Amino acid sequence: MADYTLFTNPMSRGQIARWALHEAGADYDTQLVEWDDRPQALLDANPMGKIPTLIHHHNGHDHVITECAAICHYLGAMQAPELTPKAEETADYFRYFFFVAGPAEQAITTRAMGWSAEDPQKQMMLGYGTFDKAMDTFETLMTGRDYVCGDRFTMADVYVGSQVDWGLTFGSMPSRPAFEDYAARLRERPAYKEAKAIDARLIEERQNG
Amino acid sequence: MADYTLFTNPMSRGQIARWALHEAGADYDTQLVEWDDRPQALLDANPMGKIPTLIHHHNGHDHVITECAAICHYLGAMQAPELTPKAEETADYFRYFFFVAGPAEQAITTRAMGWSAEDPQKQMMLGYGTFDKAMDTFETLMTGRDYVCGDRFTMADVYVGSQVDWGLTFGSMPSRPAFEDYAARLRERPAYKEAKAIDARLIEERQNG
Repeated sequence: MADYTLFTNPMSRGQIARWALHEAGADYDTQLVEWDDRPQALLDANPMGKIPTLIHHHNGHDHVITECAAICHYLGAMQAPELTPKAEETADYFRYFFFVAGPAEQAITTRAMGWSAEDPQKQMMLGYGTFDKAMDTFETLMTGRDYVCGDRFTMADVYVGSQVDWGLTFGSMPSRPAFEDYAARLRERPAYKEAKAIDARLIEERQNG
Repeated sequence: MADYTLFTNPMSRGQIARWALHEAGADYDTQLVEWDDRPQALLDANPMGKIPTLIHHHNGHDHVITECAAICHYLGAMQAPELTPKAEETADYFRYFFFVAGPAEQAITTRAMGWSAEDPQKQMMLGYGTFDKAMDTFETLMTGRDYVCGDRFTMADVYVGSQVDWGLTFGSMPSRPAFEDYAARLRERPAYKEAKAIDARLIEERQNG
């Protein structure tokens, strides 16, 4: 048995987890999940049946990790400490991780759903204010640096970068130079290419099958 | 100068950061911020002007940390490693942190705004499905354990526990035994009491002033 089991579907955010697995050089098996037929092993691990779900088979225990951001950081912590932050990088690393998993993700999803708050009082409740304010903040955070932690790629870039990569690809984020340059930099990574090629092949097989 | 500067308002989520500072035993100064008059030092650190914002004055650098979850974990990592996870606790620690900062927070906020998605296709886009599904999952996660990491309090409990504490207090989360017991356990902590007493006094002063 491999060290990790990844429950995923190639047309899902499971692509983020797969990229993280390749960056970490982790030994893993893939369990493909159809939306309408979730395997019992997945439901046992995660009653929500959400994908991606990652299981780490370790020292006789099965550790379940859900949420793409948690999966990225976990794989760094367990498999590739050099992709986790040094002391002086820790503030940026976790700030950006939680900014994207929280306010930025919420701003993007809310807009995709067609919801908006005009009332300033309601905007305060939202934590990110408005979509434009969230995107401006995100742009400021990515300006003047190549990666979340400055010069150096870390696991935060798999998660933050996936949000940017998908946002630009699907038009759910505005095209701005700081975002485009960052995404271009990440798309050149060997682990990104390897992981995306696997999911692209799986999508093609299913379309031809 | 203290090691940390906390920009906060007593009637805000800054209460979470203050509790985290007390759990970590950190040396900090408080800068009170009015919603309509944000000090330049805050805007210089964080153009969004969001509170809480924490600044760590460390080795000649000012590290800025925003997002309550990031602040909790950062303070553990820097000041109180015993409140960060052991290897075997890492999966739960980050899974719960990101589950609450992402899907649970989004489910609660969306409902508070009066938005809902009836369409199953849209529910998939939301990542947490429905409010009820998110709360059921949260309840399952908190069942059969005293803290996020099982028997042992960690910084994840400051963040996850604050979501539960506030959710029960303001009625934005359903009252269920697993949530009530957890909140009751946390409200007994000396650092929780100390921190809440400071914010309560600040709120009272302002009401009397």
